[in-house]
Amino acid sequence: MNNSIIVEVGELLDEVRSQNPLVHHITNYVTVNDCANITLAIGASPIMADDIGEAASITSISSSFVINIGTLNTRTIESMIASGKKANELNIPVIFDPVGAGVSELRNQTVAAILDQVTISVLRGNISEIGYINGSETTIKGVDASESDRQAGSQNGIAIAKNIANQLNCVVVITGETDIVTDGNRVFTINNGHSMLANVTGTGCMSASLIGAFCGATTTADYLPAAIGGTLSMGLAGEISYEKVGHTGSGSFHIGIIDAISKLDAMTMMDRADVSEA
Amino acid sequence: MNNSIIVEVGELLDEVRSQNPLVHHITNYVTVNDCANITLAIGASPIMADDIGEAASITSISSSFVINIGTLNTRTIESMIASGKKANELNIPVIFDPVGAGVSELRNQTVAAILDQVTISVLRGNISEIGYINGSETTIKGVDASESDRQAGSQNGIAIAKNIANQLNCVVVITGETDIVTDGNRVFTINNGHSMLANVTGTGCMSASLIGAFCGATTTADYLPAAIGGTLSMGLAGEISYEKVGHTGSGSFHIGIIDAISKLDAMTMMDRADVSEA
Amino acid sequence: MNNSIIVEVGELLDEVRSQNPLVHHITNYVTVNDCANITLAIGASPIMADDIGEAASITSISSSFVINIGTLNTRTIESMIASGKKANELNIPVIFDPVGAGVSELRNQTVAAILDQVTISVLRGNISEIGYINGSETTIKGVDASESDRQAGSQNGIAIAKNIANQLNCVVVITGETDIVTDGNRVFTINNGHSMLANVTGTGCMSASLIGAFCGATTTADYLPAAIGGTLSMGLAGEISYEKVGHTGSGSFHIGIIDAISKLDAMTMMDRADVSEA
Repeated sequence: MNNSIIVEVGELLDEVRSQNPLVHHITNYVTVNDCANITLAIGASPIMADDIGEAASITSISSSFVINIGTLNTRTIESMIASGKKANELNIPVIFDPVGAGVSELRNQTVAAILDQVTISVLRGNISEIGYINGSETTIKGVDASESDRQAGSQNGIAIAKNIANQLNCVVVITGETDIVTDGNRVFTINNGHSMLANVTGTGCMSASLIGAFCGATTTADYLPAAIGGTLSMGLAGEISYEKVGHTGSGSFHIGIIDAISKLDAMTMMDRADVSEA
Repeated sequence: MNNSIIVEVGELLDEVRSQNPLVHHITNYVTVNDCANITLAIGASPIMADDIGEAASITSISSSFVINIGTLNTRTIESMIASGKKANELNIPVIFDPVGAGVSELRNQTVAAILDQVTISVLRGNISEIGYINGSETTIKGVDASESDRQAGSQNGIAIAKNIANQLNCVVVITGETDIVTDGNRVFTINNGHSMLANVTGTGCMSASLIGAFCGATTTADYLPAAIGGTLSMGLAGEISYEKVGHTGSGSFHIGIIDAISKLDAMTMMDRADVSEA
Repeated sequence: MNNSIIVEVGELLDEVRSQNPLVHHITNYVTVNDCANITLAIGASPIMADDIGEAASITSISSSFVINIGTLNTRTIESMIASGKKANELNIPVIFDPVGAGVSELRNQTVAAILDQVTISVLRGNISEIGYINGSETTIKGVDASESDRQAGSQNGIAIAKNIANQLNCVVVITGETDIVTDGNRVFTINNGHSMLANVTGTGCMSASLIGAFCGATTTADYLPAAIGGTLSMGLAGEISYEKVGHTGSGSFHIGIIDAISKLDAMTMMDRADVSEA
């Protein structure tokens, strides 16, 4: 348990709730409603705009920018890159969720194009996706991490995360049974969460939105606390929702996640966080 | 409290439930599921179709047409205008929700194009959006009304709403802590609702869908009762949902809004409406 | 009550939960989140990908492919056909939900193009949609079956379903108060379900996703049990959700459907199924 980082993350949560940062998303149409609602629940404001005619201009008035390639299409790839470049120009943090990286040539090319043209602040994915970016051999199954990958254990994950973090000079988050967050130097593991999170679509996307909210309230160039904050919040929401309504089924558990985020405070983080520095 | 208008609105609610009007939407992909479900919950039928190859033809079999520019893109702007013109041709009421007006050039141009080419029956927005259309100085923050705008009070809002209503010859609704509904002549204020409505995405979009349902059941050219009906219904749903499940969190509150609309009846309107003629 | 088919369907449900088949969807943006979550709830994995640059490639790694034309647009029609052809090439079952067939020329042409170029394993729709494909005279109202069609009774429905099943050499499902499932030879009727299912958008789309999950776990070329399994599961979920939370309203009922699917097992199917061979 690492107290000082949790204190820092808790203070950042208070900042999110008081600053109400605007989080621009170019994301998929499967989980977009949940991304918007979780952004509101944590205390930030979502805005979704993906037309090339306005995307970069919307980015320029935002506090952070989240890219998610879950339902990639050629119309929006151009907007992702234009908005990403604008964000870089204005020092607005960019959170990138490379959903399904490794699954198709289009996704792989898009991931390469984004990483080539946009400086990322936080890269978040499952072990299959981040492993693909690392050039590791992984077994990909659709947009979810494969079982064998998930069981590969966190040691391998930590090595991959540190490598990518150093290569891209960004914070890397690998979510799974144990979440890994690193800036390439310090490494934190988070053992909160619940296996039922895998039974609801978009919990990864929502994590990225939460990281976007925490980044939007960050005033330095250090996005490690923000990345921990967003990832930890989703883990805690999974635990709390499971305790309250998990027995009812996955529909109620889904709604319970949003409920838990809307009620989350620094005290609860302090009480429940299971975060260690590796 | 204005009894006669509430009686009229209550009767219109009964008409929605018995006539089951078809409400065509061209709307955003963030809140579209909620728009469809709230349309069903009030007793109408939703249809979403935005391809230029069928949009106007779908409008022509509908009882009302709702335009929402929340996630505007160039593909659907053309469809919005074609469907709007078809609706005008057939005297089908058009409800326009200019989400984020003032936020980007693309939105501003689109708002101008729609208002120029389509006759609107009901224009619904927050004070920032309607203020932008009025040419007022407003402080816009993303797709939500800015705090300073919200605190500007309803007197300024009433003047803006009346001005636009007369200019466009339509009913104007400004939603906020106090909702304003006017046809340019009569002005009603609605003091129902709950601040928690701002913590769920799409409550404005859902209001527009509800207005669409009420307009679809209106047999005259007077859409003032329909606009009051849709706006009041959302306010009451916010209050009722807050009482029942608000303490649980914003996810449950979201679901509770749909629950409340599905149970709403004229009697509840009569009991709870806080509507005054200004 | 037909016991042997229910036993077979129950075993197939166990297969879905153990095999976790990947179900590729090209579907509408109104109900896509529910389609993904119901696919997870039954034990399969959803993937949504509709760009022509990756659609067929995603199909090729999937266990089944679901086409839904609810919010048809010209960009994705091409992807539907390319993915459908790829599925046919690899003997991956294709489930087709012709939402709103008969409502517009664009939908009619698209339905014709898909049926012409793609071999379908399971065709699922309401009586208006399947009736349109049969060339029957039906009264279409938007994307929901018209009341007169629904009251036409199941005898007419059975004749239509058998005719289309023989013509297209596929399994046909007509959902309504009584669901009809036939491969053109054997005909099953399902009397589970609840009228409140019509008050939630996407229950038809979710049925198609469930059929996709059951087809994805089917190892023979006989998709009759899979079609019964998906259709019956939705009916049971409607009943169970109504019993638990139906009185609360249609928002809670919606969530209750996902809850019930996530808890569904072969035993519950055996206990509650009201399935007859006609």
